[in-house]
Amino acid sequence: MSVLVVGSVALDSVETPFGKADEVLGGSANYFAASASHQTPVQLVGVVGSDYPMEKLEPLKARGIDFAGLETAQGESFRWRGRYRHDLNSAETLETRLGVFSHFRPKIPAQFRSADFVFLANIDPRLQLEVLGQVERPKLVACDTMNFWIESRRADLLELIGKVDLITLNDGEARQLTEKANLVHAAKWILDRGPKTVLIKKGEHGAFMFTQSSVFFAPAYPLESVFDPTGAGDSFAGGFMGWLARTGDLSEANMRRAVIVGSAMGSFVVEGFSLKRLLEISREDIEKRVADFHQLVTFDQALNA
Amino acid sequence: MSVLVVGSVALDSVETPFGKADEVLGGSANYFAASASHQTPVQLVGVVGSDYPMEKLEPLKARGIDFAGLETAQGESFRWRGRYRHDLNSAETLETRLGVFSHFRPKIPAQFRSADFVFLANIDPRLQLEVLGQVERPKLVACDTMNFWIESRRADLLELIGKVDLITLNDGEARQLTEKANLVHAAKWILDRGPKTVLIKKGEHGAFMFTQSSVFFAPAYPLESVFDPTGAGDSFAGGFMGWLARTGDLSEANMRRAVIVGSAMGSFVVEGFSLKRLLEISREDIEKRVADFHQLVTFDQALNA
Repeated sequence: MSVLVVGSVALDSVETPFGKADEVLGGSANYFAASASHQTPVQLVGVVGSDYPMEKLEPLKARGIDFAGLETAQGESFRWRGRYRHDLNSAETLETRLGVFSHFRPKIPAQFRSADFVFLANIDPRLQLEVLGQVERPKLVACDTMNFWIESRRADLLELIGKVDLITLNDGEARQLTEKANLVHAAKWILDRGPKTVLIKKGEHGAFMFTQSSVFFAPAYPLESVFDPTGAGDSFAGGFMGWLARTGDLSEANMRRAVIVGSAMGSFVVEGFSLKRLLEISREDIEKRVADFHQLVTFDQALNA
Repeated sequence: MSVLVVGSVALDSVETPFGKADEVLGGSANYFAASASHQTPVQLVGVVGSDYPMEKLEPLKARGIDFAGLETAQGESFRWRGRYRHDLNSAETLETRLGVFSHFRPKIPAQFRSADFVFLANIDPRLQLEVLGQVERPKLVACDTMNFWIESRRADLLELIGKVDLITLNDGEARQLTEKANLVHAAKWILDRGPKTVLIKKGEHGAFMFTQSSVFFAPAYPLESVFDPTGAGDSFAGGFMGWLARTGDLSEANMRRAVIVGSAMGSFVVEGFSLKRLLEISREDIEKRVADFHQLVTFDQALNA
């Protein structure tokens, strides 16, 4: 089954302690799509300005990503410029130029409306709600969000949360949204407002998947070299949703496997700038990393003294 | 087999957002011993002042902890007073009074010198080295340390590291000691200087066990109520070493199980002040928590699309 993503298609300029990249492919929808495309066909909806280097999208098209929903508007593309310090924990935003993205109104092409899996990447919750009004009967709708919307669009975000099956957000955002310091309490607060599943991302400290009846934890892979953390969360979501769309299986066991596939994709993307690693790796590399995750956490609970 | 611990026996006064406790049992050796005693007999070496409420140690003696190595010196016992803010992540030390602990010279009683498992809790590395000179041929010697010794006793600490089988330290200490931001690099740096195993504790973010050929990760259990984080690291070490001493098995599989037992003990101790929870729980509670850890991280890597 295919997965539909609605989000940003941007140009990023990033500095890390290991180098810099200028005007490279970025944006939540690009990261999500490149990651999910290892599992399943992807349909992308977004907007770019007339200055966007469309030829750079060719490798993504070659991977089965359908850009029929990528609108080109008069004006500048969304640009983000940021820097990571030595600990790589948090990005320092040096400049954000929304350009045509500030007037984005997602229009889902007719042939995308029957998508079974829908990911509403981090955009204004009002627009995320508009997308929900345009799709038919997805098997699973997931959304992401961020601190800015939690502050400025709380009512819309809560309406959205009541209509999605799953939400991904990071630990700080979960605490901010729910005003609960404890993540178990925060997850319950969200689960009580609609979603059947809450994915709380903790960056280098891994990710939790909460449902009303279970908790699953996946560590972040202990990499020897983290090059550029940009896009890790969207690549995680792409691997997760891609695996679900590929299998069509929403059982707890398969959702757990999807979290690990997502964690694997997050661990690959940070090994290089932009989409580089996502475009290099093979399905075998992903399977190998999933096996490495298994080795990382496996213990025998039945060992006896 | 029994486990020998050398460390502090203190009186703690702690404030958390949930309450306060005055002059309760604390210190690394007490936490370690109470935790390990669920698995195996424990021998404790430490010092207290003439003001220590010895009757409060009775429940520990009843659990099989041998205090023959607890010296009583003229003067005040070691006292620590601290406070945790709402996020419970780090203690704010309000007062430390070393008292008789400042002149502590560990003397290992003759009947303790053949201990098979030795834990050198966080004390001056010079004293940790003195203990090594007094014990016979342990199967495994582990040490803990802290930022203060990394700064002030670096040469002694490096000498110690060259003589132990295992070291436990937290992520900040590992980075400080090795001057490596990346924990994989930090662990390799330490492994190259002697220990066969490095346990890096990340508090609420879990713990890594590194060897030259493997990495194991155990999350912290997602508790709904964390009451007082004091003693979590020493209780972790106590569960880990206690399990190893109980089983006498130093295989990778059993060391992994030991990390989980340690994580379980760390998750219990923070549910109450002081040693309260460690003295309440049963071996069945520990087995149940180990099973909960298994449920928390288990996924089927063989699921196919």
